[in-house]
Amino acid sequence: MFAGFDIGGTNIKGVITDETGRILKYRDTATPATGKAIDNAIAEMIITLSSAASVSKDQIPAIGIGAAGSIDRNKGIVIISPNIPAWKNYPICRNVEKLTGIKVYLENDATAACAGVWWHNIKNKYKNWIMLTLGTGIGGGAVIDGRLFTGQTGSSMEVGHMSLDPHGPLCPCGNRGCFELYSSATALVKHVKTGMKSFTGSKLKLLNVNEITAKRIYEEALAGDPLALDGLNHVSIYLGIGIANLINIFNPEAVVIGGGLSQANKLLFPKMKEIIKERAMKGLKENVKIIAVKEQSMIAALGAARIARDRHNAL
Amino acid sequence: MFAGFDIGGTNIKGVITDETGRILKYRDTATPATGKAIDNAIAEMIITLSSAASVSKDQIPAIGIGAAGSIDRNKGIVIISPNIPAWKNYPICRNVEKLTGIKVYLENDATAACAGVWWHNIKNKYKNWIMLTLGTGIGGGAVIDGRLFTGQTGSSMEVGHMSLDPHGPLCPCGNRGCFELYSSATALVKHVKTGMKSFTGSKLKLLNVNEITAKRIYEEALAGDPLALDGLNHVSIYLGIGIANLINIFNPEAVVIGGGLSQANKLLFPKMKEIIKERAMKGLKENVKIIAVKEQSMIAALGAARIARDRHNAL
Repeated sequence: MFAGFDIGGTNIKGVITDETGRILKYRDTATPATGKAIDNAIAEMIITLSSAASVSKDQIPAIGIGAAGSIDRNKGIVIISPNIPAWKNYPICRNVEKLTGIKVYLENDATAACAGVWWHNIKNKYKNWIMLTLGTGIGGGAVIDGRLFTGQTGSSMEVGHMSLDPHGPLCPCGNRGCFELYSSATALVKHVKTGMKSFTGSKLKLLNVNEITAKRIYEEALAGDPLALDGLNHVSIYLGIGIANLINIFNPEAVVIGGGLSQANKLLFPKMKEIIKERAMKGLKENVKIIAVKEQSMIAALGAARIARDRHNAL
Repeated sequence: MFAGFDIGGTNIKGVITDETGRILKYRDTATPATGKAIDNAIAEMIITLSSAASVSKDQIPAIGIGAAGSIDRNKGIVIISPNIPAWKNYPICRNVEKLTGIKVYLENDATAACAGVWWHNIKNKYKNWIMLTLGTGIGGGAVIDGRLFTGQTGSSMEVGHMSLDPHGPLCPCGNRGCFELYSSATALVKHVKTGMKSFTGSKLKLLNVNEITAKRIYEEALAGDPLALDGLNHVSIYLGIGIANLINIFNPEAVVIGGGLSQANKLLFPKMKEIIKERAMKGLKENVKIIAVKEQSMIAALGAARIARDRHNAL
């Protein structure tokens, strides 16, 4: 049995799984404000989860944590997290190990989500594939030659900050024209808000600014709203440009697209695939499957458990 | 002992190495015009190389081939090669196996060059690093978690065709604004030729058009020529933009830069590093070594021998 946690700015999600990735129990709780309180919340969840699953603590050899932010997987510290200000060079692994007596492994939350999709969706179908998570930003993950790709410190696949236009808008990361400025849910909403003036006959113009969400835009696009369709078209063009780059770099068997915005795949994929066909290299683009996965709230916690299993078993 | 071949449009280079990467013998020959003649040339080189090294053929369990072009490493075929028109879905591995009785492994020539640098220069110093070869185009390779990165079919790391500007010039590959249109030796020469009119006081303006080579531009830049310096500045800005993307994607310990243009590193690197610092993500950019490697004519053949060793030993 393994435990996995997904720690975001809003919630901590935790699972206990068996060796095969079956989720035995799931719990979530609001993310507390301090580092110590987060450590304690994880330790408490280990107790409630294992008791609910009728598992004793020594049946859990390892805990995996997927954390939002910049991490060092080797040192087990969160360097900085945009959504959890309490974490600064925070030794989360050591702290949780002290509280629980169980070995703790840390990865980036996008890597954990990729590991979750690997365990739950892709299984052994592909040995080389990449994943994009279209949400507030664009996260990424990859499985290369049958192994989870982490990079040097656990911060690989920051594909949302691949620049697609060197003269593009400034990104908070310091770069310009980053992928997530064009193809995230946030970018979709921004594009639609900016387009308001030039579109007639859009229902979206009747809404309060804060009612314009990616979900609402998607719903209006399904009903044929021209502004909403223009927004999704913009997102899909840049999705195509960004994914063509990643195909040329990774020569993958599959590109898996998750996150909230992937629900709009029927509207996003046709144009996106056209651009990929136009821009990715011959010999690489022909053999790539493009797959949308449904958003699954437990996926990063599940993936964190898989990471715990794999890193523990590799010892 | 292992044999490695680097097959380019102009020459076939071949080596025999020991298990540790020491080159015992080297030979080269002009690349013949037909597929069959290339097969035969390799088979003959195996005989001359092994006799020169006083090695019998059954002491060579595997041959590695690095081929310029789009390949399928699993099937052992060259799908298409821009410089060797005779190769179209060409089963080079099977053919050479028949002629020599030795198992043959195929990889892309840029992957082979990366394997060569791994064996000769990097050794076990880094487990996660990427390589760029700045020549006619921009080739790439990577070692991920201590293993050579090949992708699904052996065509990974086509970083020269990562688009840096979606509205940029059309590339022969079909994409727009590809990295190699800005930062290859070819791009340098083109930029300088285009800049001719607007620069006064450049010695390059006195040359015949075909005397303007990357090497000559580098030499004039060393002597302070403003047009030559402008050309190298242009190359280094886009090198910085492209490498920042790759750092965000790979979270590498090192970026290794080879190929003819890497000889200009003293002039290229300062501006390039400034751009990387400006554009790559915090937490990733601080720990990356940027390393220039001297051009080594045998490196891809050496790497092909390493590939033969590693794939043979993995059986």
